[in-house]
Amino acid sequence: MSDRPRETSPRPPQTLIGVLRGSRTPLLVGHERPDGDCLGSQAGLARILMGLGRSVRILNPDPAESHLAFLMEGLEVSVHQGGPVPEHDVCVLLDGSELSRCGPLGDELARHASTKLVIDHHLHAGAAWWDDAYLDSAAAATGLLVWRLAREMQVTLDARAADALLTSLVTDTGWFRFPSTDAETLHAAAELVELGADPAGLVRRLDGGRAPEHPFALAAMLETTEYLADGRLATLTGADRPDASADAGAGDEALGVVRRVAGVEVVLYFRVVSPGRVKLSARSEGEFDVCSLAARFGGGGHRRAAGATIEGALSEVRALVTSAAILDLGVEASRPSDDGGRV
Amino acid sequence: MSDRPRETSPRPPQTLIGVLRGSRTPLLVGHERPDGDCLGSQAGLARILMGLGRSVRILNPDPAESHLAFLMEGLEVSVHQGGPVPEHDVCVLLDGSELSRCGPLGDELARHASTKLVIDHHLHAGAAWWDDAYLDSAAAATGLLVWRLAREMQVTLDARAADALLTSLVTDTGWFRFPSTDAETLHAAAELVELGADPAGLVRRLDGGRAPEHPFALAAMLETTEYLADGRLATLTGADRPDASADAGAGDEALGVVRRVAGVEVVLYFRVVSPGRVKLSARSEGEFDVCSLAARFGGGGHRRAAGATIEGALSEVRALVTSAAILDLGVEASRPSDDGGRV
Repeated sequence: MSDRPRETSPRPPQTLIGVLRGSRTPLLVGHERPDGDCLGSQAGLARILMGLGRSVRILNPDPAESHLAFLMEGLEVSVHQGGPVPEHDVCVLLDGSELSRCGPLGDELARHASTKLVIDHHLHAGAAWWDDAYLDSAAAATGLLVWRLAREMQVTLDARAADALLTSLVTDTGWFRFPSTDAETLHAAAELVELGADPAGLVRRLDGGRAPEHPFALAAMLETTEYLADGRLATLTGADRPDASADAGAGDEALGVVRRVAGVEVVLYFRVVSPGRVKLSARSEGEFDVCSLAARFGGGGHRRAAGATIEGALSEVRALVTSAAILDLGVEASRPSDDGGRV
Repeated sequence: MSDRPRETSPRPPQTLIGVLRGSRTPLLVGHERPDGDCLGSQAGLARILMGLGRSVRILNPDPAESHLAFLMEGLEVSVHQGGPVPEHDVCVLLDGSELSRCGPLGDELARHASTKLVIDHHLHAGAAWWDDAYLDSAAAATGLLVWRLAREMQVTLDARAADALLTSLVTDTGWFRFPSTDAETLHAAAELVELGADPAGLVRRLDGGRAPEHPFALAAMLETTEYLADGRLATLTGADRPDASADAGAGDEALGVVRRVAGVEVVLYFRVVSPGRVKLSARSEGEFDVCSLAARFGGGGHRRAAGATIEGALSEVRALVTSAAILDLGVEASRPSDDGGRV
């Protein structure tokens, strides 16, 4: 989010580094449905700490999706199944700053007496609940913060750690296309390649392996495109019940196609994830703040990419969120283009 | 093409730099239907030479497509309309190494007594016809060669030159996804951003501005996907007559979607560009050499991305090229995986 003021200095706090170095049994945790940046930054930090002789565990609310499972190879990883968390001295939450985004795992972690650290590049709204944090909402990925940590700690990343952090960078920047991509992101990517990260292999892992039906699934998803609010808002709509055979990638890819249409400022993608629960993915192509929109429905994210899981029927949720977005667009449209017209 | 041996040292020849520095009226030329790398490297080199006080002209066989026209702003650019070329002392062919790929302009240039230079990252098959050349088929883009030239000449690129060279890099690497992307490419991109290139602006210019019909055009193109040779070959087929209203971007985008399907080694995309002329775009996802396939039909390119314009009806051309590709796949399939089985 290069258009936002930085919340903290880009350099990792020495105090946080001290806690990491002092830890003997760190536990790295992440958010529900962990994505490439969450898992990549966890794997990168895990390998840094293992290199320092620490006994590292990763514990997530949900398993890695199959195309991201390679990140966890060779690491001690488990998925929280309820109940108390394993013994640990320091808990590091990566790619999120709210324990509430960890599902039931969050409550268990809150109960544990461990020292709590947060490493994240999302905007944090509430009070600081942690013992120490490394936050920089201007950074393109949490993986970039871990890369800076490695430099500050003077640790040389091995090829697998480099691959993990490159995964963070490419997944959270849409392969260097999102506005958060800056010179530092590209330099970091170059250095990670020098350290042994394999960009061609990542393309195959992350982008390849689609089913033969994928082009047709994407076509079907694109056919659901609807334009509203004079073409400033576009929506994509999945099937009205959860479908285990559904091609999850088709929706994200369709979102990427529709956001490139001229005049479209916001794209909303609705899909049923379980009976009565609808996942909203929202993307903005300009000043429209989808994080604020998603937050009103219990979600969050970034200004230009956010999401929420909302209780209700697909058609109801779609109508509700779409109306809210149109209202937001209307308010924005009535504003003067600069501050000159404001009192 | 990082998997190919480098044809020359990556450093630009001092002799070529000497000719460029000695030139007073350089003419920069490119290939038919100039793409982002051709125009970006021309604009970059033009601005370098203009900064040295040279009177630079760019002359191409075809105009820039509208989304690339920004590259040519503020430069002296013309499109060859037949007849003799303007007076010039040094002719620099960028992003191609054959005057035959310049259409009728190529013959006129060959007739002119100017010193001929070539700067290119494609594989060159025939004899050297030029006075001096800077060839590196391992480089991700011709723009990368111009970036190296600027460094070697100790010229600081201005923001517009940096934007032009970043355009070269992103268009010829599929935004850093193609296997040609290496650490040098990413470092160069980072430095270009530091010099004022605007990646977010390029995303908008190159990827944005699609028509509202684009998602539906892409859907229609994806619906033409056909799998052949046990799913190792996929084809996409455009309308059987040239259609001025056709969405050219939809075909390229569909090609990108289908090449990610598991098991697909080659994707061929056929479209009619003028009555009786079919454009083939071929992409490979592995060892299959589409450059060799395209060369048999009078085209060329890279091992993993090549094209040709072929005389004939769409259905005939498609049948002919598809058969040739299946034959190539068959030959490859019967080969042992290493040289041990060969006599």
